[in-house]
Amino acid sequence: MDRRKFLAAGGVGVAATALATPAVAQDVREWKLVSAWPKNLPGPGVAAQTLADRITTLSGGRINVTLYAAGELVPGNGVFDAVSEGTAELYHAVPAYWGSKSKGILLFGSQPFGLSADEQLGWMVHGGGQALYDEMYGRFNVKPFLCGNSGPQWAGWFKNEISSLEDLKGLKFRTTGIASQMAAKLGMAAEAMSGPAMFQALQTGALDAGEFIGPWTDSALGYYQVAPYYYWPGVGEPSSAEECGVNAAAYADLPDDLKEVVAQACQGLYGQVLTEY
Amino acid sequence: MDRRKFLAAGGVGVAATALATPAVAQDVREWKLVSAWPKNLPGPGVAAQTLADRITTLSGGRINVTLYAAGELVPGNGVFDAVSEGTAELYHAVPAYWGSKSKGILLFGSQPFGLSADEQLGWMVHGGGQALYDEMYGRFNVKPFLCGNSGPQWAGWFKNEISSLEDLKGLKFRTTGIASQMAAKLGMAAEAMSGPAMFQALQTGALDAGEFIGPWTDSALGYYQVAPYYYWPGVGEPSSAEECGVNAAAYADLPDDLKEVVAQACQGLYGQVLTEY
Repeated sequence: MDRRKFLAAGGVGVAATALATPAVAQDVREWKLVSAWPKNLPGPGVAAQTLADRITTLSGGRINVTLYAAGELVPGNGVFDAVSEGTAELYHAVPAYWGSKSKGILLFGSQPFGLSADEQLGWMVHGGGQALYDEMYGRFNVKPFLCGNSGPQWAGWFKNEISSLEDLKGLKFRTTGIASQMAAKLGMAAEAMSGPAMFQALQTGALDAGEFIGPWTDSALGYYQVAPYYYWPGVGEPSSAEECGVNAAAYADLPDDLKEVVAQACQGLYGQVLTEY
Repeated sequence: MDRRKFLAAGGVGVAATALATPAVAQDVREWKLVSAWPKNLPGPGVAAQTLADRITTLSGGRINVTLYAAGELVPGNGVFDAVSEGTAELYHAVPAYWGSKSKGILLFGSQPFGLSADEQLGWMVHGGGQALYDEMYGRFNVKPFLCGNSGPQWAGWFKNEISSLEDLKGLKFRTTGIASQMAAKLGMAAEAMSGPAMFQALQTGALDAGEFIGPWTDSALGYYQVAPYYYWPGVGEPSSAEECGVNAAAYADLPDDLKEVVAQACQGLYGQVLTEY
């Protein structure tokens, strides 16, 4: 029914009362989505907001998801623990951030010289990947879904020109995941840190170089201002999957249709995020 | 609530009555999905079934979708008209089949030497493609969504060996979409027909050659038995989008959450189908 017609027909007082008591009010789950990203950061930050909005819409408001950007509720690197412990119901981040919990987790994000974005999703859907993913994250009370992929990432931003592999030796380099081990084998001191922290570290000289994602997202973080040499291609992350983790108890408590809502909100974003890069 | 506990606590008679009257029963939409494919044909036939099941699950049964394979309710090439006229609410097919309605429709399926599957989705999401798609199909009372992509298609199955472009001249060749015009420029007589019809036409000699999709789907249709020369790569369809069309009035009648259910069931399938090829 057209709301204005309803207001005209029923009187403002009656209408306001009726509208304030939606039929599904007793079933609404208020869920917190904590993300590892600055608010609306091109790429993953926008994906986190889209995920929150899409679950809310798809569920007809029965799951009302509120997004908290990195640092708003918990630090960006604390979102996995927050969902594992039930402080929040959902997070949006990348598997590459959780290698300290279990090295095997890193395989779900990216592999140097490894799978393309389509191949990574294929492994999940057809190759038994989702079962392994469920088993690994289940140990931490998290139900995981792939939810975005940035495609091939770039080699990174360097404060000084690189002319040979020798020039890499001794550099302090920001990267994550299995790519950190590759960087170490090339003689670099690899450090993981957030995107904004990488900018500050490059600016102060605490870092010599680093990679975050690629030009679209990275330009929003301003790396070009403090590290003018930018190299392509990167081989450390031929694709890099983003993920949504759901508190296992909160997920188990959902009826089947809302389980599918969460799954399909994530799966629909996988290819959509890839088209942005 | 656990159903067994409820039965034990409330008594079987009361429980059976309560369970027989689900709260949403009055809202159930019974929708027919007509597809252009044989039942469970690897690739598009499976995608059509998945689409039906996923909309049913995602909607919590509020849209109960029943799939009809090609020929069960209407012929495979009649699904667009069936949805346009409201005989069925949904179809699953490819834009390449509807060039006789408007040549512009063909661009939403594939373009010779054109867009990859990811690029085609990117055009929809970021490049204004969906608005053009809505406008074009809106003329026929259909709301369209991309819903699957087979990736690069093969050049095709030939009864005789091809050693030069000269050998193509005069061949009767099954293909669809803009690729038909390309085939005509190469001197072939291009004909559109269904996958099963292509098998019969090759077998009887009514066709000299043809392409349908690629080895995975095509092997289920048995072309290798009647046309032993199989050529790769194809350039006519660097990717080929599948689509779901929804009767515009049926779609407009949906609340926002069920509109999003249809949209996301389709979008989630886009990348999933691609991983199968």
